[in-house]
Amino acid sequence: MQGDQQGYDRGTSIFSPDGRLYQVEYAREAVERGSSSVGVRTAGGVVLAARRRVRSPLMDAESVEKLHQVDDHLGVISAGNAADARRLVEFARQTVQRDRLTYDEPMPVEPLAKEVADHVQEYTQSGGARPYGTALLVGGVTDGRPVLYETDPSGTPSAWDAAAIGGESGEIREFLEAEYAADADLESGVDLALEALAAPDDATFSPAEVAVGTVTAESGYRTLPTDDRRNALDALGLLDEDGGPQAS
Amino acid sequence: MQGDQQGYDRGTSIFSPDGRLYQVEYAREAVERGSSSVGVRTAGGVVLAARRRVRSPLMDAESVEKLHQVDDHLGVISAGNAADARRLVEFARQTVQRDRLTYDEPMPVEPLAKEVADHVQEYTQSGGARPYGTALLVGGVTDGRPVLYETDPSGTPSAWDAAAIGGESGEIREFLEAEYAADADLESGVDLALEALAAPDDATFSPAEVAVGTVTAESGYRTLPTDDRRNALDALGLLDEDGGPQAS
Amino acid sequence: MQGDQQGYDRGTSIFSPDGRLYQVEYAREAVERGSSSVGVRTAGGVVLAARRRVRSPLMDAESVEKLHQVDDHLGVISAGNAADARRLVEFARQTVQRDRLTYDEPMPVEPLAKEVADHVQEYTQSGGARPYGTALLVGGVTDGRPVLYETDPSGTPSAWDAAAIGGESGEIREFLEAEYAADADLESGVDLALEALAAPDDATFSPAEVAVGTVTAESGYRTLPTDDRRNALDALGLLDEDGGPQAS
Amino acid sequence: MQGDQQGYDRGTSIFSPDGRLYQVEYAREAVERGSSSVGVRTAGGVVLAARRRVRSPLMDAESVEKLHQVDDHLGVISAGNAADARRLVEFARQTVQRDRLTYDEPMPVEPLAKEVADHVQEYTQSGGARPYGTALLVGGVTDGRPVLYETDPSGTPSAWDAAAIGGESGEIREFLEAEYAADADLESGVDLALEALAAPDDATFSPAEVAVGTVTAESGYRTLPTDDRRNALDALGLLDEDGGPQAS
Amino acid sequence: MQGDQQGYDRGTSIFSPDGRLYQVEYAREAVERGSSSVGVRTAGGVVLAARRRVRSPLMDAESVEKLHQVDDHLGVISAGNAADARRLVEFARQTVQRDRLTYDEPMPVEPLAKEVADHVQEYTQSGGARPYGTALLVGGVTDGRPVLYETDPSGTPSAWDAAAIGGESGEIREFLEAEYAADADLESGVDLALEALAAPDDATFSPAEVAVGTVTAESGYRTLPTDDRRNALDALGLLDEDGGPQAS
Amino acid sequence: MQGDQQGYDRGTSIFSPDGRLYQVEYAREAVERGSSSVGVRTAGGVVLAARRRVRSPLMDAESVEKLHQVDDHLGVISAGNAADARRLVEFARQTVQRDRLTYDEPMPVEPLAKEVADHVQEYTQSGGARPYGTALLVGGVTDGRPVLYETDPSGTPSAWDAAAIGGESGEIREFLEAEYAADADLESGVDLALEALAAPDDATFSPAEVAVGTVTAESGYRTLPTDDRRNALDALGLLDEDGGPQAS
Amino acid sequence: MQGDQQGYDRGTSIFSPDGRLYQVEYAREAVERGSSSVGVRTAGGVVLAARRRVRSPLMDAESVEKLHQVDDHLGVISAGNAADARRLVEFARQTVQRDRLTYDEPMPVEPLAKEVADHVQEYTQSGGARPYGTALLVGGVTDGRPVLYETDPSGTPSAWDAAAIGGESGEIREFLEAEYAADADLESGVDLALEALAAPDDATFSPAEVAVGTVTAESGYRTLPTDDRRNALDALGLLDEDGGPQAS
Repeated sequence: MQGDQQGYDRGTSIFSPDGRLYQVEYAREAVERGSSSVGVRTAGGVVLAARRRVRSPLMDAESVEKLHQVDDHLGVISAGNAADARRLVEFARQTVQRDRLTYDEPMPVEPLAKEVADHVQEYTQSGGARPYGTALLVGGVTDGRPVLYETDPSGTPSAWDAAAIGGESGEIREFLEAEYAADADLESGVDLALEALAAPDDATFSPAEVAVGTVTAESGYRTLPTDDRRNALDALGLLDEDGGPQAS
Repeated sequence: MQGDQQGYDRGTSIFSPDGRLYQVEYAREAVERGSSSVGVRTAGGVVLAARRRVRSPLMDAESVEKLHQVDDHLGVISAGNAADARRLVEFARQTVQRDRLTYDEPMPVEPLAKEVADHVQEYTQSGGARPYGTALLVGGVTDGRPVLYETDPSGTPSAWDAAAIGGESGEIREFLEAEYAADADLESGVDLALEALAAPDDATFSPAEVAVGTVTAESGYRTLPTDDRRNALDALGLLDEDGGPQAS
Repeated sequence: MQGDQQGYDRGTSIFSPDGRLYQVEYAREAVERGSSSVGVRTAGGVVLAARRRVRSPLMDAESVEKLHQVDDHLGVISAGNAADARRLVEFARQTVQRDRLTYDEPMPVEPLAKEVADHVQEYTQSGGARPYGTALLVGGVTDGRPVLYETDPSGTPSAWDAAAIGGESGEIREFLEAEYAADADLESGVDLALEALAAPDDATFSPAEVAVGTVTAESGYRTLPTDDRRNALDALGLLDEDGGPQAS
Repeated sequence: MQGDQQGYDRGTSIFSPDGRLYQVEYAREAVERGSSSVGVRTAGGVVLAARRRVRSPLMDAESVEKLHQVDDHLGVISAGNAADARRLVEFARQTVQRDRLTYDEPMPVEPLAKEVADHVQEYTQSGGARPYGTALLVGGVTDGRPVLYETDPSGTPSAWDAAAIGGESGEIREFLEAEYAADADLESGVDLALEALAAPDDATFSPAEVAVGTVTAESGYRTLPTDDRRNALDALGLLDEDGGPQAS
Repeated sequence: MQGDQQGYDRGTSIFSPDGRLYQVEYAREAVERGSSSVGVRTAGGVVLAARRRVRSPLMDAESVEKLHQVDDHLGVISAGNAADARRLVEFARQTVQRDRLTYDEPMPVEPLAKEVADHVQEYTQSGGARPYGTALLVGGVTDGRPVLYETDPSGTPSAWDAAAIGGESGEIREFLEAEYAADADLESGVDLALEALAAPDDATFSPAEVAVGTVTAESGYRTLPTDDRRNALDALGLLDEDGGPQAS
Repeated sequence: MQGDQQGYDRGTSIFSPDGRLYQVEYAREAVERGSSSVGVRTAGGVVLAARRRVRSPLMDAESVEKLHQVDDHLGVISAGNAADARRLVEFARQTVQRDRLTYDEPMPVEPLAKEVADHVQEYTQSGGARPYGTALLVGGVTDGRPVLYETDPSGTPSAWDAAAIGGESGEIREFLEAEYAADADLESGVDLALEALAAPDDATFSPAEVAVGTVTAESGYRTLPTDDRRNALDALGLLDEDGGPQAS
Repeated sequence: MQGDQQGYDRGTSIFSPDGRLYQVEYAREAVERGSSSVGVRTAGGVVLAARRRVRSPLMDAESVEKLHQVDDHLGVISAGNAADARRLVEFARQTVQRDRLTYDEPMPVEPLAKEVADHVQEYTQSGGARPYGTALLVGGVTDGRPVLYETDPSGTPSAWDAAAIGGESGEIREFLEAEYAADADLESGVDLALEALAAPDDATFSPAEVAVGTVTAESGYRTLPTDDRRNALDALGLLDEDGGPQAS
């Protein structure tokens, strides 16, 4: 970025001369500063996975919130500003509850993702607040069909077979484009997600350094326990048992 | 644009010395940054069509929202800021619903387009928010007569036989001016719309890269399914079956 | 204008050291940027006429709103920012309706013009919004007497025998001052209005490029149909049948 | 004025280091930009008179509002920003009506002028709006005694035997100080007022170019018809029958 | 004052680095710009007196408000911005009325002065408005004891035997300190007040150029009529019968 | 202070890069500009004392408010902006009254001081207002035990055996640290307080130039009358009978 | 930090071009300016400890609030802006009370810490206020299990075995990482906490200079009395009996 955006980037209520919203673009940078998260749609369900940045071995890695349950059959994985993500997930939860009161059945992924996105958009048009510095991947099973949506800081929703948000998301997306197979089962989806997270820097992980969740028609939203994560990482040659913090 | 607009373009609540509203002009630039959309009024109904920018083969092209149903007999195609378009279409839907409760009959295109435009105008006169960075083409059939309206970021409505908004809209409009025939049928209208979208850069499209909707007196609002789009593109020599993402 | 107004022209809530309101003056420039409109008071009624800027032959010239009916016996012709004009005309319509509910008789031109002007003034004294970038000519018949009022962006109302607003209004006013005759009939008033619009650049018009409305005691508010406009232009040697868009 | 007021003159909510309110001083300049108005207190009643700036012979001079009736026995003549004056007079009218509902008798001049002045003061202390760019002379008869009050843009009321506001008010005041006689009758007061308006530039007027009103115990508020104005100007050698617009 | 206060003096909501509130200091300058007023506490009651600036012999000097009655037994004399003073006195009147409704007895001077001061303080702490550019001397008799309070633009109340506010208040205070005698009677107090007003420039006054009020236990609030003022000035050798305006 | 705080010190709603709140620090400077006040906790009760700045012998020194009674058993002595102190003491009084309505017993010192401090904090976090430029010492007897609390402009409460606020508070505190004895009786506490006030500049005082209050279990809040202050000063060799104003 | 953040750090409502929120980072600096606090999770309960900065031997060290009881079984230790901490703890107390009214059982640590964090986040997204310049360690026992959470100025919650906030927190954390043992008992936890506070500068403490609290399943929230702190410091060789203030 050059200096010529000066003055047009001091708030959400002005366009630049070339029609850009710099504050939204800077919020995208805030997402890029976060650790990476991926989502993968498989025949058996949706996989949500993320790297965790654990600052100290004394920190409880599980408390680094990347995975968020929104409903029995709905999960979110986030990237970017963690506190913003909490607020946005709270909005999602309230939306699901309100929807359930109205229609008395589970809210599908697509309308939820769109309501979240519309809420995000409001912070890009009026002054007095900044955009959300966070992106979400919303995964769920609607009418037996796995669905994966992304919401970005501009408030635009989009559906994906497999998606990456946060740091190095470009490289991870390229990896997913090369390796994704629509007919894979859930377990392969977990493997793909972990391999994708490791791809940009050939990383290895302790179980605590990754979070993995799945949403299936049968079991709804589930998080993968530490042992399962260790086994999966080990089988993929991605386990770094010595380094990093212990998972609780 | 030169530097002399500095200071007069920092908000919607000031005029420049020569009576211009720079923020509205910048919002027009935001529309130009979007992919192109066209509308064509034919004897048989209104055609709405757009190019879709699909960032990755893993993305579900259908989730790139350009076409929006507003009512049984009313559709919108948008260009520019996608999140802004969603919000404006939501306003249109609420307007139609409120109108129906009052008059107990379908809302015609013209008053809807004007209510949307008036809502857009409010964001160009008061401070504290930016204008909408989006333009809409509203198509419908009123009393059996196809009608096509445009709303722009200034909040000015206008009616067209055939119109283009978004990127390269100038070149597409020239193409439409040269090729438009008022007595064409709906199918020819679809062909004209696709050819117009391809005109600026002699593009070819996968079916997923275009969205096509129609509004007719008989069938109301319809979207053209993937196969029909493939057939239409193929017949026009515009099909690029290899490239681009798969439509769902 | 020189540079010394810098800082005093950034809002409506400050005077310049010499007691000027620059934002109001800039709003007058916005009116000048619009195409010209004229009003003529004749023995038989009031004539309202305007040039229309039609961007494309595919555009429906009639949708370029210059003429606005406000009540059975009240019409407005506008110049300047078209979206602002719509909003101001909407205010006028609501004022007329409210007045009718109170007094159960048609609202005269003068009080309506003054209420509109007072509404416009509010946007010149408080911060947070810009003035209206539009001027109106309000024409009507009150107690059998034709009346023509102008409202400008400062919120000052004034009555005229014949008036011009918008682009080249100075030259058109000079033409009207030279040619106006108070005892002319309505038809001569239409001719004078069309000639005045053509005067600055010896223009010729297609019927679609001009809008003409009349308000008479007998017939109330009427718009001149395309054929009548063609005939009138033809008789005046101002018809340009080949160029420009078709009127609907 | 020098440049050292920069920064202290951008709003009503700050004092300059020497305790001045520049925006109020600039509002006084806005009054000076207006055409001149005078008020004269005579034994027989109060005279209010003003020059009118008529931009075109097609303009109805009577619609250039300088004189405003506020109540049966109360009139106002204004100078400065015409739209601001309308708003302030509207405030005066509402004040008089509210007062009448409370006390069931005509409101005297002094309390009315003070309520208007207090309203004006509010626009000089809080931010978000500019001061009124207008001054008023309020004339009336209270308990049989003619009273003349001035309100200025600072919100300070003052009573006068004869006063001038608007352009060249300094020279006109000097003329009034030299020529005023407290025992003059109403007719002499009209003559004095017209001569005072003509004094700065030895002007002559068409009847349309001056407005004259009187308030007497017997007849309340009256405006001088065109013929009376012509006769008065003629008798004073101030008639310019050829030039200027016709009065309606 | 030097330039180093720049930026810290643009509003009431910021302190300067050395803990000063420049806007309050500038408001004190506004008081100094006003003509001088004095108050004197005597054994027989409180004297309030002021110089009046009369701009023209045509002006009614009595309408230059320096003296204000607040209640039967309470008076105020002001200095500084006259319109601000009117507003503050109005606040005092409402306070007295509200207090009387609550306690059913006259409000003493001290609590009134403190309520006024607290109201003034509010305009020195929050943004969006400027401080009051006026100081008041509140005089009255409480339980038979004459009391004199000052309120300044910072909102600090203080009690005095004799006080001066407005232009040249420093010199007048020195005169009062030298000449004040606590056991003087009311008449001597009037003389002291007039001499103090004349002291800085050895001025002489027409009766119209001074305002004098007294508050005593027997007679409550009274203003000194023109003849009494003339006699008092004459006896003190301060009468300037030729110059200045006539009192009404 | 150097220039590098520029821009970070213009409001309470921003931190400087090193985490400081300059406006709060400037408010502390405002406290330092005030005359000094001290509080001393003794076995017999709390002593509150202050120097008074009396501008003129005509001023009633007692009206220079440093001591404030808050409840029967609660007193406050203030330093800094006097008008701010009045407002804060008013808040304290309302807090005590509300607390009494709820609990029907006297409010202890500690919770009162903390409520005051929390109120002060609010003015340091949100924009639109400046912090309080005043510090308080709150003294009282709770359950028979003397308690002394300080509240500063940041809103931090702290308890002290003996404390100093206002001008020269550093030197006074050093004096108190050297001379304070926890087992002293009330009278010795008064002496210590007066000696501490005199310490920085070896000052002597007229009785009017100091204010002294005490709070004891037996007598609650009391102020020391003029004679007692004279005797105390005399006994300490601090009496300046000739200079300064007379106490009322 | 370099100068290139200028302009992006003046409020919470804008991102910098690289997606940072400078005001949140500056608020972290405000925490670093505070004295250090630590929390240690042991088998027997949670230990909260802090250094106290006592400005004077006359100050009551206990009134320097670092430890705050929130509920029977919940304590908080804070670092940074003390007044901000008070406000945040007050929010925590209200949250606990509201939660108890709803669920009729003690609120667990995790949801409380998250509600506090979400409240903190709100001050980082909207303009008009600054972030909280304080961090908290929330300790408690939930279902018999000791839990320790941190909330930082960004509004991100995190769980720890042992954590440090405030000045020198980096060095203290390193000490804790080296010395922490998950199976230590409560007493060892107190020792570890005190040693950690002393580690950065090999400090010794008077009992008054440290605050220690514990939360256990058996006894709930307790503060360590002065004698116990003296004994603990003495046993660790960290006692500085001569220096510093006396604890009350």
